Amino acid sequence: MSAFPAPTEDARQGAPALAERYRAVRARSIALAAPLSAEDAMVQSMPDASPAKWHLAHTTWFFERFVLGTRDGYAPVDPQWDYLFNSYYNSVGPMHARPRRGLVSRPSLIEVLEYREEVDARMARRFDAGDLDEDAERVILLGTHHEQQHQELLLTDIKHALWCNPLGPAYRNDLPQRPGRAAPLRWIARDEAVAEIGAAPWPQARGFAYDNESPRHRELVAAHALASRPVSNAEYAKFVDEGGYAEPTLWLSDAWALLRAEGWQRPLYWHEDGAREFTLGGWRERDPHAPACHLSLYEADAFARWAGARLPTEAEWEQAATGVAVDGNFADAGALHPQGANAGGSGLQQLFGDVWEWTSSAYTAYPGFRPLPGSLGEYNGKFMSGQNVLRGGSCATPADHVRASYRNFFPPTARWQFSGLRLAKDPE
Amino acid sequence: MSAFPAPTEDARQGAPALAERYRAVRARSIALAAPLSAEDAMVQSMPDASPAKWHLAHTTWFFERFVLGTRDGYAPVDPQWDYLFNSYYNSVGPMHARPRRGLVSRPSLIEVLEYREEVDARMARRFDAGDLDEDAERVILLGTHHEQQHQELLLTDIKHALWCNPLGPAYRNDLPQRPGRAAPLRWIARDEAVAEIGAAPWPQARGFAYDNESPRHRELVAAHALASRPVSNAEYAKFVDEGGYAEPTLWLSDAWALLRAEGWQRPLYWHEDGAREFTLGGWRERDPHAPACHLSLYEADAFARWAGARLPTEAEWEQAATGVAVDGNFADAGALHPQGANAGGSGLQQLFGDVWEWTSSAYTAYPGFRPLPGSLGEYNGKFMSGQNVLRGGSCATPADHVRASYRNFFPPTARWQFSGLRLAKDPE
Amino acid sequence: MSAFPAPTEDARQGAPALAERYRAVRARSIALAAPLSAEDAMVQSMPDASPAKWHLAHTTWFFERFVLGTRDGYAPVDPQWDYLFNSYYNSVGPMHARPRRGLVSRPSLIEVLEYREEVDARMARRFDAGDLDEDAERVILLGTHHEQQHQELLLTDIKHALWCNPLGPAYRNDLPQRPGRAAPLRWIARDEAVAEIGAAPWPQARGFAYDNESPRHRELVAAHALASRPVSNAEYAKFVDEGGYAEPTLWLSDAWALLRAEGWQRPLYWHEDGAREFTLGGWRERDPHAPACHLSLYEADAFARWAGARLPTEAEWEQAATGVAVDGNFADAGALHPQGANAGGSGLQQLFGDVWEWTSSAYTAYPGFRPLPGSLGEYNGKFMSGQNVLRGGSCATPADHVRASYRNFFPPTARWQFSGLRLAKDPE
Amino acid sequence: MSAFPAPTEDARQGAPALAERYRAVRARSIALAAPLSAEDAMVQSMPDASPAKWHLAHTTWFFERFVLGTRDGYAPVDPQWDYLFNSYYNSVGPMHARPRRGLVSRPSLIEVLEYREEVDARMARRFDAGDLDEDAERVILLGTHHEQQHQELLLTDIKHALWCNPLGPAYRNDLPQRPGRAAPLRWIARDEAVAEIGAAPWPQARGFAYDNESPRHRELVAAHALASRPVSNAEYAKFVDEGGYAEPTLWLSDAWALLRAEGWQRPLYWHEDGAREFTLGGWRERDPHAPACHLSLYEADAFARWAGARLPTEAEWEQAATGVAVDGNFADAGALHPQGANAGGSGLQQLFGDVWEWTSSAYTAYPGFRPLPGSLGEYNGKFMSGQNVLRGGSCATPADHVRASYRNFFPPTARWQFSGLRLAKDPE
Repeated sequence: MSAFPAPTEDARQGAPALAERYRAVRARSIALAAPLSAEDAMVQSMPDASPAKWHLAHTTWFFERFVLGTRDGYAPVDPQWDYLFNSYYNSVGPMHARPRRGLVSRPSLIEVLEYREEVDARMARRFDAGDLDEDAERVILLGTHHEQQHQELLLTDIKHALWCNPLGPAYRNDLPQRPGRAAPLRWIARDEAVAEIGAAPWPQARGFAYDNESPRHRELVAAHALASRPVSNAEYAKFVDEGGYAEPTLWLSDAWALLRAEGWQRPLYWHEDGAREFTLGGWRERDPHAPACHLSLYEADAFARWAGARLPTEAEWEQAATGVAVDGNFADAGALHPQGANAGGSGLQQLFGDVWEWTSSAYTAYPGFRPLPGSLGEYNGKFMSGQNVLRGGSCATPADHVRASYRNFFPPTARWQFSGLRLAKDPE
Repeated sequence: MSAFPAPTEDARQGAPALAERYRAVRARSIALAAPLSAEDAMVQSMPDASPAKWHLAHTTWFFERFVLGTRDGYAPVDPQWDYLFNSYYNSVGPMHARPRRGLVSRPSLIEVLEYREEVDARMARRFDAGDLDEDAERVILLGTHHEQQHQELLLTDIKHALWCNPLGPAYRNDLPQRPGRAAPLRWIARDEAVAEIGAAPWPQARGFAYDNESPRHRELVAAHALASRPVSNAEYAKFVDEGGYAEPTLWLSDAWALLRAEGWQRPLYWHEDGAREFTLGGWRERDPHAPACHLSLYEADAFARWAGARLPTEAEWEQAATGVAVDGNFADAGALHPQGANAGGSGLQQLFGDVWEWTSSAYTAYPGFRPLPGSLGEYNGKFMSGQNVLRGGSCATPADHVRASYRNFFPPTARWQFSGLRLAKDPE
Repeated sequence: MSAFPAPTEDARQGAPALAERYRAVRARSIALAAPLSAEDAMVQSMPDASPAKWHLAHTTWFFERFVLGTRDGYAPVDPQWDYLFNSYYNSVGPMHARPRRGLVSRPSLIEVLEYREEVDARMARRFDAGDLDEDAERVILLGTHHEQQHQELLLTDIKHALWCNPLGPAYRNDLPQRPGRAAPLRWIARDEAVAEIGAAPWPQARGFAYDNESPRHRELVAAHALASRPVSNAEYAKFVDEGGYAEPTLWLSDAWALLRAEGWQRPLYWHEDGAREFTLGGWRERDPHAPACHLSLYEADAFARWAGARLPTEAEWEQAATGVAVDGNFADAGALHPQGANAGGSGLQQLFGDVWEWTSSAYTAYPGFRPLPGSLGEYNGKFMSGQNVLRGGSCATPADHVRASYRNFFPPTARWQFSGLRLAKDPE
Repeated sequence: MSAFPAPTEDARQGAPALAERYRAVRARSIALAAPLSAEDAMVQSMPDASPAKWHLAHTTWFFERFVLGTRDGYAPVDPQWDYLFNSYYNSVGPMHARPRRGLVSRPSLIEVLEYREEVDARMARRFDAGDLDEDAERVILLGTHHEQQHQELLLTDIKHALWCNPLGPAYRNDLPQRPGRAAPLRWIARDEAVAEIGAAPWPQARGFAYDNESPRHRELVAAHALASRPVSNAEYAKFVDEGGYAEPTLWLSDAWALLRAEGWQRPLYWHEDGAREFTLGGWRERDPHAPACHLSLYEADAFARWAGARLPTEAEWEQAATGVAVDGNFADAGALHPQGANAGGSGLQQLFGDVWEWTSSAYTAYPGFRPLPGSLGEYNGKFMSGQNVLRGGSCATPADHVRASYRNFFPPTARWQFSGLRLAKDPE
């Protein structure tokens, strides 16, 4: 009997396509880790971040634990790794303390890569044998999306790690830089309307979506206007230069307390020289046309207040994004940094890619939300407290990982993601 | 020229009524502090709480600073107290650090009471002179509501302070206890509907409401059901007894981490003997019929999950409360503790009074929200981060202080308020 | 059978003299607390300090617990206070957490004063009855010395508490100020010698001394020189003005880390205006001739290094003080602040009184040290870690409480005692 | 002109011998690091510990900065490493924060090994050229002793790092284990005497000693007895089994607070199974005959009190060790773990090697102490606060690094060194 709810339509993705997706995603992780030495892959620069080696191992553990390991008598590659590479699934047992992931010199990177190969080989045998049931196929599909999330984290975590190194080394020295030109900001207004928000619950419905995106439901979205593009570096620099970080009335109370305690004076990776910023390609001149990035919600909110505007709600954002092609500066483009869009077009620019856009919406359950059954239900629901939703994906997100209904979430203090903002405003 | 937006109707409360309200609210604070010794009035048992003396002084400072002090040449009662008794108005100058309020032995309680008398006398002269303009009248009205909030905090803060004392002394030994009988819990269902939520903005509209309650706006409320009454002590005790505090899958991730770090095993004021709880009347037998109280959002949320239900949204709550008489076990009743309702009636019981009801809604701005102008704009808006909304007032709230649109807010960790919950659920 | 070692000589102090001492010491505590309101007496401004009310209660508890309470069937004044007013005697049961002493509004100051009266009355009956055995007499004598220590702490703790108040109130407004004139600093040299250090163990020997002062033993004291008087405010101000707090090579490693973390730039109670200091009489002009005060060991050590000198060892200090009359600016003089000595005299000035003098000696056991038996053995020995010895008493010490062998001890970070320094140096 | 004091005798070690010592010490570091992967060499398991890679780089930096770099126009191997690999020399510039050493993935281990080779090559050219002046030779000799200290830390730090890994991997799997048999403990008494303690100041005197060991001076050592050997695992296990960790009266006040806060129940590396301990060879059966190890001063002190004894002073220890051959279970023996001595002999056993022996002596300056001139004066003196002296070297100490006058020092909380104890007692 399936642990999942019964599909309401034929939602089963073809097994060959799934095997191909599995191989592609798994290979992409290896490619992302390729520029890293074993030492780079071990750095954990803060409790919120994880070493690249851990990301490589944990995503593999996911398949071993939830696909391979569900068969009676399964012999794990190494039984001790269940403890080491569990992230937060309380229901499947105890786990290694998160802030201590950077202390694990053994297994080595090479052993972790061999672990990946072994699990991939076992998975390939299962694919070849054709004996994966529907439940297993669903977990595999979920696992590839899970791994894509960790691919983005691998990039943001290693960026933070390298930035912590006084030598300021680059993740890669060959990242392309394409100049853009930010178009003047326009406001695109919309009247009050009932919008259909969210995704139909997977796996009952065919298309994959996380449980937190469902059920699809109706929301009344008040009249408002959205900015035509994200806030640019030039615009954010003006906020900094005009004393935005010194004016308490612009900041939420918690934000002001944190800013004072931490000494924030500019976005996380901006150099105090006022000109450079740290990128996955090392220290570079900041492009005034590119979207401002590595902002906390607190900074995005303060900027919006300074600008006489506000952050959009996630419903406003999704309503605007519905039907828009998921196209933009994603990780696949290889820049791994936000870029200025080329001017032109009458619609909303850069909704997808470049920077995750903070919304004013707290990350909570949609009406009628049901977590996935069993351990996989720990995936999203238990984080519905103290976080805000971000939308649209970034330059570090795989292109086939996001969609209009996708809900990313981080605490309002988080700055190490590729996070920026798009302004919204109420009618006068 | 008024700093406030122009009223859209004749919203001016008559001056005599305002003077009377001022006198009544001010007298009520004195009455609440009467059972306290000077020493009791100085205890600050945690950074979140304030000494009773500080509440008495700060609410007085509010009138002196924002009403009396706006006249040119005003001579303050004591210029140094502006620093001591400012709470968080960054725009009016520096302030004494909140966690150090309990160190202020001077001015003494007697001096603070004299300060109150002097400010009240000055206010009376202004009322008598009839020279208060509309702006001043609005600030005074706001100031009385502000003081009522502090009246509730005075009670919750002194309760915590006395509980910290190993002797467990009572605030008052003569508090009445009225037994009730909790009716069986029923579900009251409602179909999807567009609801009018919130209050018209004051002072443009006649009725007082805080800026965070406006503007009045439309929300689509999905079909759902609300429980007929709050969760009772008996029901919550079952959750405790059946291991609710030991089961990680019932708790939000942040909640579980906190529960482990702090060793939570039951509500804040429940005795480990399983039978008693700490009240403003000292240690007493817990009444199984009374609403469960002093729960954090985390505990309310975990209980709801355990019960196969969820917390209501604030829109669901307000929709249900609209048109319901604001009647219940408020501070005016003198019990200062939640009580079991008497069974009977077909509607929603105890919506108002007894316990603040946690909602799943993060405390954020309504669409089109505008803070009050100037310093008073710091009152509500800057706290719109990291907190959840509670509705309905408690046994420590003045009866004429709440309304259906009233939004109280506290962090999800807060337990020292009279906070409980009412269950909600989605259609099957 | 006595719990104490048998006396080796007739060390029993006459009972009438003991009763008189008891009365005098107990009355002195009341006199010291007289200027304090009930609110003042409740402030605990940091975990290291205690409220005056607690000092008054704890010193009383000592007599009730260790004298009155040793009789079978003794009915305590209030059994709950045993828990509240135990300080650190693990062997007599659990105790209230030290940092929470400031939260105890009840019992009130008045109740504590009544507690003192009741215990004093019970003690008087025991004195009058003449039924106190030798052990009890010893504990009483110890208890009076214990209370004298708390008298000094009451003063240093209330000074800190009042300094924390932004209003900067005085403990007393009538404290006399006597100007002095610091004589030029001279060096008084001494050749290598074997010195007799310490006191004969009490109660075997007649004269009272704490257990940590014994046994009397021989130490080889190397050739050295001692400064003729403590370092003055003028001298210490020069160190501050010439950048002493900004030069890492002057400071111990732990000291430099603390100074940076805490932002130390001058002694604890010096005003940033460079001219005033906080005293028990409120903010006053600093007297350049008075001994520098409220220095941590770290500051005393850095000053000495800057001055090309060092701190004395406790053996050097005691050797110098042996045979010197215990005379100086003690609490009995009523100034409650260090004062400049009048110039003149060829010997060592101000060895006793004014300021406790930091020594370079860690507080450890003398060879052959034996703690007192039973619970009273917790008095001194268990603190022999992480502290340094100070010698000579201060302007807040009762004159009949100190002696040449007296060892006071505080952590190297402590600044709120009346602590200064006298320089020493090695032969060229 | 030499920065050092003029030698009072011909203290210059022959240049060829110095070059040979340099080569041997440098090679030994490489040998110690050989079992470590690049990942192992990067782990920093706590702020007190450093990664092996950092030890390898820092000891090299010492020679580059203080020998090679003193010549005008010297081109450093990499100028940025001056910042990265300075440990605590405030006088030579800013430095990388100690707790962040584990984040430095670049330079890689290979680059650090190449850095070592390059500096060694440059040093070899200077040795070959014969142009090193006396000052340089002194710094080189000091540098080799400095590196030997770091060799021991490399071992204790990697032991801690591997212990933190849930897999419990071994540093080496081929470490020899030699069983011994602890002789019955005997007491060796000594009468009061004036002892000559310490070393003549280097480089004025021929033999190398750290500045903190000098000047040689006289101390009066009271009559006492020393145990014939260190406390054994069997003896310490009895203390654990009989509830030593649960009895507050055995512990210093600071110790008891720490023990409760940290949950200490046994020595750092003892397994809760009661039988095994963690060693550089992984988890092993504990040898009851071997000296107890990885004790903090607090634990050593509590054990001594439980045993009716005390810790020795450093003067007692040095007096006993004077004239004793520096022979024992040092790092050179290759066991890298304490071992039981073979019974027999009438004197003091295992004074040298096996475990550092805690003394009751605070780490302070000897009378007449003078730090080395310049930056090297930061080596020892500034740590003379809050630490205790340990004597005799351990199984991780190079044999030619210690001597009777050698003073090691650690805070009383430190447990990750190979630290044990020898009992002492006063005459009855």
